[in-house]
Amino acid sequence: MLYSTIVIGDELLIGQVVDTNSGWIARHLAPFGWEPKSAKVIADDAQEIFRAIDEAFSQTDVVLMTGGLGPTKDDITKATLCRYFGGEMTLNDDVRRNVDNIFAKRGITMNRLTASQAMVPSSCRVIQNEVGTAPIMWFERDGKVLVSMPGVPFETQTMMERAVIPQLIKHFNSDVDIEYRTFVVIDYAESALAEKLDKFEQDMPPYIHLAYLPKQGIIRLRLTGAHKDPQVINADMDRLSSQLHKILGHSIIADDDKPLAQIVGERLRELGLTLSTAESCTGGNVAHVITEIAGSSDYFMGSVVSYSNDVKNRVLGVDQDSLDTFGAVSQPVVEQMANGVCALCHTNCAVATSGVAGPGGGTPDKPVGTVWMAAKVGDIVVSQCHHLPGDRARVIDRATTQVLIMLLKLLG
Amino acid sequence: MLYSTIVIGDELLIGQVVDTNSGWIARHLAPFGWEPKSAKVIADDAQEIFRAIDEAFSQTDVVLMTGGLGPTKDDITKATLCRYFGGEMTLNDDVRRNVDNIFAKRGITMNRLTASQAMVPSSCRVIQNEVGTAPIMWFERDGKVLVSMPGVPFETQTMMERAVIPQLIKHFNSDVDIEYRTFVVIDYAESALAEKLDKFEQDMPPYIHLAYLPKQGIIRLRLTGAHKDPQVINADMDRLSSQLHKILGHSIIADDDKPLAQIVGERLRELGLTLSTAESCTGGNVAHVITEIAGSSDYFMGSVVSYSNDVKNRVLGVDQDSLDTFGAVSQPVVEQMANGVCALCHTNCAVATSGVAGPGGGTPDKPVGTVWMAAKVGDIVVSQCHHLPGDRARVIDRATTQVLIMLLKLLG
Repeated sequence: MLYSTIVIGDELLIGQVVDTNSGWIARHLAPFGWEPKSAKVIADDAQEIFRAIDEAFSQTDVVLMTGGLGPTKDDITKATLCRYFGGEMTLNDDVRRNVDNIFAKRGITMNRLTASQAMVPSSCRVIQNEVGTAPIMWFERDGKVLVSMPGVPFETQTMMERAVIPQLIKHFNSDVDIEYRTFVVIDYAESALAEKLDKFEQDMPPYIHLAYLPKQGIIRLRLTGAHKDPQVINADMDRLSSQLHKILGHSIIADDDKPLAQIVGERLRELGLTLSTAESCTGGNVAHVITEIAGSSDYFMGSVVSYSNDVKNRVLGVDQDSLDTFGAVSQPVVEQMANGVCALCHTNCAVATSGVAGPGGGTPDKPVGTVWMAAKVGDIVVSQCHHLPGDRARVIDRATTQVLIMLLKLLG
Repeated sequence: MLYSTIVIGDELLIGQVVDTNSGWIARHLAPFGWEPKSAKVIADDAQEIFRAIDEAFSQTDVVLMTGGLGPTKDDITKATLCRYFGGEMTLNDDVRRNVDNIFAKRGITMNRLTASQAMVPSSCRVIQNEVGTAPIMWFERDGKVLVSMPGVPFETQTMMERAVIPQLIKHFNSDVDIEYRTFVVIDYAESALAEKLDKFEQDMPPYIHLAYLPKQGIIRLRLTGAHKDPQVINADMDRLSSQLHKILGHSIIADDDKPLAQIVGERLRELGLTLSTAESCTGGNVAHVITEIAGSSDYFMGSVVSYSNDVKNRVLGVDQDSLDTFGAVSQPVVEQMANGVCALCHTNCAVATSGVAGPGGGTPDKPVGTVWMAAKVGDIVVSQCHHLPGDRARVIDRATTQVLIMLLKLLG
């Protein structure tokens, strides 16, 4: 199925905000074989909207539209859609109740502007927006479909997954059920993982699609499928899920799409353990990603960023001999950093990093990207040396990910 | 002047990569009164490219095109442009030399694919790409102009500033010189700054444009102008620059577009001072943004992330009485944290934070977003309480910015 995307919004066109909706839509329709023909950003302007719809329908039978619906947009989009598809603007009681409920929850009163949200063209079918006030409108004419959605990415994405994608698939591919499963995978580069899963992919039912979503050394695997019989798809998904676990073993660190720092945090909480970090080249970024997770104060006690050798020695207790003999970027130093921060912060677990983030500071022995890292759980300390590619920011990000993976493995 | 943007690339259309070029172009042409009519993302497909150019020229006299030029793109874009504007594909010696030079610098040899970069339609004028191998092509027909640029944002943005924008302005507005000045401003919300600069803006020469670019509590002011006489524009820019300094005084913290952490770092280096950080709610993020700056090890010694009260007390020396009486989020605690980390890391300067980042942990007295922060230079310690809006990530970001601004002011 081919479709066009139209993104409405002055703020997007003039470059104040970047459009992420059209890319999100493309990624989430791809598993069903749906392909975008074009994605066009236009202004909040009636003539432009009219022209863009005409143009899009001349190329595809489906048009997905986001934006142009806020209470301050003067209802240009809705009025234009009403003109395009016919009918008149009418008060929709369900939308009105939805807006009332949302405002009651937030403890504010509806004003004239927000009340106008409940006015919709009589030619559309409304899909209730469960996470916002702007209604989603479904129009049909001559077998073609246009869906108008809010511009706020969170609202569009939530409602696409909950309602719009299932209804589009159902409308064009008859009655089907959609299911997703996500797996967070470590230990593999994308190409190596694809090779490992070659046979698995060949044997998958053809209606199920496997996507690789790599990010900072971790790959998210996503199974997506649409099937008429919910029992069949459930059984297939369960079977594929256990096959994946069999093939990849401990390389699957979560059956759910969540950040690595949260996976580590949940494991620490389960085991009743506490964590501290000792950081040189990562400069506080490991502590930062751990404390980005709400509730991390349950298991995270603190960190020492020992940027200078003096702080490594005096605060973390790294002995001066090791610093002199092996240098700051070395196995003995990073292991002593892990031991030192555990003792200092009274924790059972720790991670430590010391490396050359660049662009300066590299030597023939230890070029930019060389990072020694250690993880400690109870009395066991493990350490590794990594050679990470990329610029300073990327080395810091990668080292942060790798040291958390080391800890997760040690936690078992 | 109205223009259309066409962005070519399968990877953009399917949502693997987000298009940031069209927004960048819009922001950088706005100061000259140029307005985008639409921005369309299409596939690497000859028919689509042809159709998109036709459509764009039916609405505007200028079309700016990015992408579709890499050596792996099979030259679809170039062949299509050749078909559209006429002429034939010919070897351009200047491009060939440019590609040769770039490859020589990188120490690699040109292969068949990269050699094809030097082939361009005879109907275009080439603008040398000084930072990449794909040539920039300028086409004209019936008073209309199309400029084809690479998809790599760094290349497009660099060459737009160095060559394409000046040439476009010159072509349509006759012979002019372009100048930019940027100022980093603290202490003001955008609306308050606009009020403060009301008279200044009214008195500006009409050919100079002032843009407000706010980000995380800091506003970048940008003066842009185009004028036939370089001496006039230089004199005007100098005059406006000193007027801005007079009006805003110490609220201008840099005359150049650079990160706050770099401005703080340069000031520390100038003064020969050293810095450490003691962080509770910011969880290591202050240390992280400081150490993102290359060379920060010259002045940054280390940090203690004291997430638990135990670490605040034992490692930083915050007395237990203060913690019990005033709580961790309090003036006495945050000041003792700053003093403690200076003593521990042997630095002259420090910053400290303690707050409620949320979503949990808020109380009626100290709701989510309450952050106490301190800055210390030599023997002087100052502290402030901020109430920051937004979710956990935003509170952490804002607190990081605010505490660095406090330090910068104390450094004088």
